[in-house]
Amino acid sequence: MRASVLRDRRMVYRDDVPDPVPGPGQVLVAVRSCGICGSDLHFAAHGAEVLALTAQMTRGGGGMDVDLDRDIFMGHEFSAEVLEAGPDTETYPAGTLVTSLPVLLSDKGVEPIVYSNTTIGGYAERMLLSAPLLIPVPNGLDLKHAALTEPMAVGLHAVNKSNISPRETALVIGCGPIGTAIIAALRRSGVETIVAADFSPKRRELATAMGAHQVLDPAQGSPFDTVKPAVVFEAVGVPGIIDDVLSRARPGTRLVVAGVCMQPDTMHPFLAIAKEINVQFVLAYTPEEFADSLRAISEGETDVSPLITGEVGLDGVGAAFDDLADPERHCKILVTP
Amino acid sequence: MRASVLRDRRMVYRDDVPDPVPGPGQVLVAVRSCGICGSDLHFAAHGAEVLALTAQMTRGGGGMDVDLDRDIFMGHEFSAEVLEAGPDTETYPAGTLVTSLPVLLSDKGVEPIVYSNTTIGGYAERMLLSAPLLIPVPNGLDLKHAALTEPMAVGLHAVNKSNISPRETALVIGCGPIGTAIIAALRRSGVETIVAADFSPKRRELATAMGAHQVLDPAQGSPFDTVKPAVVFEAVGVPGIIDDVLSRARPGTRLVVAGVCMQPDTMHPFLAIAKEINVQFVLAYTPEEFADSLRAISEGETDVSPLITGEVGLDGVGAAFDDLADPERHCKILVTP
Repeated sequence: MRASVLRDRRMVYRDDVPDPVPGPGQVLVAVRSCGICGSDLHFAAHGAEVLALTAQMTRGGGGMDVDLDRDIFMGHEFSAEVLEAGPDTETYPAGTLVTSLPVLLSDKGVEPIVYSNTTIGGYAERMLLSAPLLIPVPNGLDLKHAALTEPMAVGLHAVNKSNISPRETALVIGCGPIGTAIIAALRRSGVETIVAADFSPKRRELATAMGAHQVLDPAQGSPFDTVKPAVVFEAVGVPGIIDDVLSRARPGTRLVVAGVCMQPDTMHPFLAIAKEINVQFVLAYTPEEFADSLRAISEGETDVSPLITGEVGLDGVGAAFDDLADPERHCKILVTP
Repeated sequence: MRASVLRDRRMVYRDDVPDPVPGPGQVLVAVRSCGICGSDLHFAAHGAEVLALTAQMTRGGGGMDVDLDRDIFMGHEFSAEVLEAGPDTETYPAGTLVTSLPVLLSDKGVEPIVYSNTTIGGYAERMLLSAPLLIPVPNGLDLKHAALTEPMAVGLHAVNKSNISPRETALVIGCGPIGTAIIAALRRSGVETIVAADFSPKRRELATAMGAHQVLDPAQGSPFDTVKPAVVFEAVGVPGIIDDVLSRARPGTRLVVAGVCMQPDTMHPFLAIAKEINVQFVLAYTPEEFADSLRAISEGETDVSPLITGEVGLDGVGAAFDDLADPERHCKILVTP
């Protein structure tokens, strides 16, 4: 079958990937749409660092078993159609449209569908999912929108972890896919003052479309000169931003770090101590947040259509990875096998 | 009157400091005991950095107005005896033994009693306090123990901010005055597994005396090889420790940073993101926590006597600052004017 795989830091089109075979509890599905996530771009560029840091964290006990010298499957924001269940597996009928947490249950245990030499992700014609984790896509919902359940769940989780209340001012730094997902979740939570900052005019437009009440261009001055947020969401992920927030934020600020910074970062703990700042680092979401995000999209509470700025086939994934470097052109590109 | 002041990074004895005169709302007191705080040692060694970082934070709007080229008064952990009230000021009778939040109210506003060219702190024969903030020392409590109310309140505040529950394991890294105050507060909170780590045998003994259930020597291996804490208290304040915790802690760890690190520090946000770690930086305490700490000491819930490892007069403060560098010899030295 066809797929796009990471090889030597580039996405490469292949038409010779063997079809996966569902085991017990697994379901073979046809991918209908898969979003390209910033973390995939990060992994393509900094895979060795990710693996080294992961190994450091786990100290040999269960790190990611990924070989960068072999092809790597990625793609964890997908919608799909049920094709066929594995042996002794009850699931929805063939043709049912679904999404799922990006996790595959197998006799080897629980494996994230994120970066793998063996477990196929959403940048492929077909992949395996876990029968107990399938969630039907509500009738009539565009499968491209359903594919955005995962990134919207990341934003919802960040907002939930912040414990923000409606009267507290939120500042969202960075209006890419994560920042805009946070803005959408803040809006759903009833937060009355959502301020968003991004250097890109296009991304500031997206922020407004997703629910920001005010947008700021950091090139015109620090956002902290304009607003005094109670909660700051960092959704950029480059070194220096956390320290700048510590320096400029008011005492008692809660900082939620959702931007994935792969490099070492330098900060002044004294700034955070003097202001008793709380820093909550976030990554994923709960199954409930995932399901709630799909419901919000399907019921029209969150309109994700402004986020979709491009669509490619499996042979266009490499070029799409390059295009995503330009925030004026793209936010979310969907891969349609 | 006599006092010990910071001059050119050294504590210098003076006998020619003019007596302070209480204004309205103020009370002249005789200092009976004053603890030497690690932050005073920090300020003596790194005063310029503290002032620069404070100015950076406040950006010209109300930073600390301290001139390092003039004598600086310090000392914020004190007990005292009421001598005389200012004009139109009601307070306790002369001879009443008191402590107070280290804050002076004046017609200039609210001034912390911490580092000042003009407001005298506890390293002096006499100082001014604010009538509304005085708390009588309960009958019979040793005034040396009452002087430790302030550092114990710092520990209590750190524990309160952690939201730790009794069944969660706590790891306290660093068993100096802050670390041991945290241990005492954890014990009072009913935490059932308190593990403390310090390179110094003497400090590990102190940790046990203050309530740690288990003590570890980091020279024998990382504490994280032995325990899997839910909450980690960082009470050392040197670069590198936060990143080490991020690297070794388990997912979902809450890290409370109470050690005051003045230098820039490098960390890997990715480690914290991948584990969704929460970092709460803490500094001070609430008035309620201050009062509760005094009550706990006076009612015997917390025995602070093991922490007191030395006593000096005002002419011995300089030498005491030097002696405090050796953790085998000292934890808390009290100044008795």
